[in-house]
Amino acid sequence: MFQSFDPVSDRSFASSHLPLLRHSMATQKLDGFIVPHDDEYLNEYLPDCAERLMWVSGFSGSAGAAIILLDQAVMFTDGRYTLQVREQVDENFFSFEDITDTPPSAWLADNGKPGARIGYDPMLHSPAGLEALVKASDRAGFVLVPVTQNPIDVAWTDRPAPPVAPTVPHDNDYAGKSSQEKRREIAAAIKKAGADTVVLTAPHSLAWLFNIRGKDVHATPLPLGRAILHSDGTAALFLHPEKVDDTLRTHLTAEVSIHPETEIAAALAELGENSLSVMIDPALAPVWFFDQLQEAGAEIIKAADPCALPRARKNKTEMDGTRRAHIRDGIAVSRFLHWVAEDAQSGDVTEIEAAQKLESFRAMSNQLNDISFDSISAAGSNGAHCHYRVTTETNKKLERGTLYLIDSGGQYPDGTTDITRTVPIGEPTEEMRRCYTLVLKGHISLATIRFPRGTSGHQLDVLARRPLWEAGLDYDHGTGHGVGSYLGVHEGPQNISKKLISQPLEPGMICSNEPGYYKTGEFGIRIENLVIVRPPVPVAGGEREMMSFEIITMAPLERTLIDTSLLTEDEIAWVNDYHAEVFQKLSEGLEPDLSAWLKEMTAPL
Amino acid sequence: MFQSFDPVSDRSFASSHLPLLRHSMATQKLDGFIVPHDDEYLNEYLPDCAERLMWVSGFSGSAGAAIILLDQAVMFTDGRYTLQVREQVDENFFSFEDITDTPPSAWLADNGKPGARIGYDPMLHSPAGLEALVKASDRAGFVLVPVTQNPIDVAWTDRPAPPVAPTVPHDNDYAGKSSQEKRREIAAAIKKAGADTVVLTAPHSLAWLFNIRGKDVHATPLPLGRAILHSDGTAALFLHPEKVDDTLRTHLTAEVSIHPETEIAAALAELGENSLSVMIDPALAPVWFFDQLQEAGAEIIKAADPCALPRARKNKTEMDGTRRAHIRDGIAVSRFLHWVAEDAQSGDVTEIEAAQKLESFRAMSNQLNDISFDSISAAGSNGAHCHYRVTTETNKKLERGTLYLIDSGGQYPDGTTDITRTVPIGEPTEEMRRCYTLVLKGHISLATIRFPRGTSGHQLDVLARRPLWEAGLDYDHGTGHGVGSYLGVHEGPQNISKKLISQPLEPGMICSNEPGYYKTGEFGIRIENLVIVRPPVPVAGGEREMMSFEIITMAPLERTLIDTSLLTEDEIAWVNDYHAEVFQKLSEGLEPDLSAWLKEMTAPL
Repeated sequence: MFQSFDPVSDRSFASSHLPLLRHSMATQKLDGFIVPHDDEYLNEYLPDCAERLMWVSGFSGSAGAAIILLDQAVMFTDGRYTLQVREQVDENFFSFEDITDTPPSAWLADNGKPGARIGYDPMLHSPAGLEALVKASDRAGFVLVPVTQNPIDVAWTDRPAPPVAPTVPHDNDYAGKSSQEKRREIAAAIKKAGADTVVLTAPHSLAWLFNIRGKDVHATPLPLGRAILHSDGTAALFLHPEKVDDTLRTHLTAEVSIHPETEIAAALAELGENSLSVMIDPALAPVWFFDQLQEAGAEIIKAADPCALPRARKNKTEMDGTRRAHIRDGIAVSRFLHWVAEDAQSGDVTEIEAAQKLESFRAMSNQLNDISFDSISAAGSNGAHCHYRVTTETNKKLERGTLYLIDSGGQYPDGTTDITRTVPIGEPTEEMRRCYTLVLKGHISLATIRFPRGTSGHQLDVLARRPLWEAGLDYDHGTGHGVGSYLGVHEGPQNISKKLISQPLEPGMICSNEPGYYKTGEFGIRIENLVIVRPPVPVAGGEREMMSFEIITMAPLERTLIDTSLLTEDEIAWVNDYHAEVFQKLSEGLEPDLSAWLKEMTAPL
Repeated sequence: MFQSFDPVSDRSFASSHLPLLRHSMATQKLDGFIVPHDDEYLNEYLPDCAERLMWVSGFSGSAGAAIILLDQAVMFTDGRYTLQVREQVDENFFSFEDITDTPPSAWLADNGKPGARIGYDPMLHSPAGLEALVKASDRAGFVLVPVTQNPIDVAWTDRPAPPVAPTVPHDNDYAGKSSQEKRREIAAAIKKAGADTVVLTAPHSLAWLFNIRGKDVHATPLPLGRAILHSDGTAALFLHPEKVDDTLRTHLTAEVSIHPETEIAAALAELGENSLSVMIDPALAPVWFFDQLQEAGAEIIKAADPCALPRARKNKTEMDGTRRAHIRDGIAVSRFLHWVAEDAQSGDVTEIEAAQKLESFRAMSNQLNDISFDSISAAGSNGAHCHYRVTTETNKKLERGTLYLIDSGGQYPDGTTDITRTVPIGEPTEEMRRCYTLVLKGHISLATIRFPRGTSGHQLDVLARRPLWEAGLDYDHGTGHGVGSYLGVHEGPQNISKKLISQPLEPGMICSNEPGYYKTGEFGIRIENLVIVRPPVPVAGGEREMMSFEIITMAPLERTLIDTSLLTEDEIAWVNDYHAEVFQKLSEGLEPDLSAWLKEMTAPL
């Protein structure tokens, strides 16, 4: 099993760890310390050694921050975690703020005492993130102190060691383009920006540029490390020596030198000594890098990570790979849905059993390298928490008369999957069917849009929400995120969301389409397929080329939850066409009885 | 007649005026000079004395720029003006660039000679606009020279005098809130931003804040001037003395001192001497103001014009006023549509005659203070130019078998209107009906959306375009712009557009809804109504409050152009409901025969 269901934190963390941290702060003469969720790689998924926010507070969510003063501590989380943070964090030690209404900078602007020394770790903040804190200190008069050693790391005596999983080549049969070719292309981009070199701090970019994968982080095959790429295409890669073996050296060729990650500081100093102009991303790289480069005398060119867009635009090999991975994954999910329909209707199956069952079906492919995130296996009212993660403490049974929501994915060598299906246990209510159908209408509306080049996901988001908005409903998460190629299940720069992300959708990008509806205390509904953005093509009888979405996720929708009286003829035809494709692509991989079941599930509405 | 149809420029302008300008540049030792379209108020509508770009080139469009070197001249315009600029500007003297692909800054970065002295008038550029030019000069090595006297103004010997139309009070019965109350509110906003004072350079903001209107600019009742508002609510207003009389003085009360506009420099210097912190908008105010303030030692707080949002959110009096104005305007437009249907089907009526007829119908109300922009009266293929303005040189007949597009509006003391209708002359083709119906579908889709607080027009734009996108069609203009209350027919900060403008739509904002389709060389179609954004209200059976649009434009759509086989039942019901409301609101104001005609035109489809 790739996933564990043990609780990862404890409500006692605040009471036991805060005194240790405060002692450590005092030795550095700090009156306060800012604890972001981010790690040194400003990454969504953290290795255990970087779970500093959880260590100090008990909060295990994927986003948030804390401010620790000597006599006060404040947790900042967003709307998704309002309930969870109060369950996990002891309110005798922490007060709570909504990070959207009152981010840490705003709180400090109002509450930071003049002259107070408030520490921050320059390795855990981007310049873009630090800016708001600097403004707050200007306003309130407190002093922002960059620490050289994180006081949490000093206080946390049983802190796990940093991960040193082997870094392995990502085969050209999956990557579709050699590292040398990629390095040549990025080198040209460096030159075009008037720079001599680029410093890459994001593990996603290392993975893509060098065609390597790692196992340093749960559920995402990231190699934690850093790199410097020069405008002649040669590069220096900084990895913990234990991660490196001869296979990797051979793969990387002589054009890429390998160094211990600890040597990055010296390498940055050298860039400065040689008076080079250095590209670096102010949204992705820690402040520490900018400080080092500036001190060394390098010319800093702030620019978006040049690997981000090429990584997002999948090439033909990557697209073919992910299509294959999605058929493989769809077979596993179909087996699972069959199992739920046949064997999990008693009311006795638990969320954990279901998640384990699905993982075992995925593992049957013998190509599952990992899950792509901890499954959201949510029965009944747990489904209303859109980012629910089941543990042995919350584990609930799939009871009759409720909905079961399962959001999950796999990491295969040829692609990353992410799919959500919602199914009834027993008989669904009329309300459940109506809400499922409204979510489905939004899903179809987005899936079928044609759009001209230059359109962003932000512009399309409304399509998925409109049927819910008309009913006075909505959902508090994005409609679609980017997905990697055997890499992050969440990757930028594209997005389909209310959030203002202006990146146009470009051919080859993979996105999710996942509208939902969550009725507090009762049920959750989400329908998620992944799509690939198609290049613009002429439209018969039209004047302008239009782009569209190719659906790659293959698994039946829940016909018993569809109220066809709420669908248009076009919408019904879309469901029937999709189901026909699902059956056609999956049935060969299924045993006769399963194939027969799938045939029924995908029969025309 | 408020509008003239004489050509405003001449193709000979370039040959006759360029030598004069170059002589003037030489006396200032300039190797080049940048000529933006903007005037000293960074305003869309210019007084004649500020038509510098037209004087130097002959180009009369509403946006663009030129760079004049001693041996070369380049015009920059956007896609709307690709044809027009080549007709109006002599290609023996100018070359042409697309301002979107190659803005002046990019052109200078590539073509500016090291050491060349390139002049700009700091009164005609915002800091936001100048920034790109500064970057270009850093890159190319030319020297940007702020001029103290614009070399065009020296060379242009018969330049008209600046306008000095009287500034008059805008009655409280129309404004709905006293200037004193508005000044108190903005004063509070100044304090909240930590400033002592705000410098207002946008005439729209003067008009709104002081409840005044002017006649300095064609079609928009703007008073050209400047103002300084202090955090105690008192203000200094800078206007040409000829614009000021005792009625205005009494209206403004002792809390507002009035000064000649020429004294603004001294007043800015005084702000600096008193070490005040001054709010000013870097997107709306000329660089000159920032230079003056900085030199004087003031603390500059760059922030959005604090009047912009309160001005956009109309109060109840303003909303009631604009609703009345729209019924009055709808009666005039209906008379006009009746006239086109009965008297302009011969093929002998010209675009100018039609525009004059419509203006005369509007004038019948005895409340028309001005038109709100030069009518787009476009017959046949002229309609395919979405920003067409008819002159005696382009004047065309409304021929049978074509479409006629009329986009027009009025300035009434209680509201500003803007409406587009498209009607057939003779029998429309199937293609015209199909395209009109696609445009109508988009119009209805946007008109009927419900949306939560925080949604921007950028997010909704896709709704109006989707039916066209599905057919491989699109239009190259925004879907909706803000509209003032007896003020600008184009006003920010809201917008419904592909362009990334993130301002959420807020209750009381007025917007246009105007999708279109333009078939080059054949016809143009546009359907435009204005709407008011409604506040969020509960939705029956829903959980969240939703906002929506109230349609205020009242005039029949063209039933002969609607192909009902392409409409859904809901869309047909929308047309019928809208038509019923049109008839109900307008019929009382029409003579019996016209009312009978309107009844037919608005009968259920």
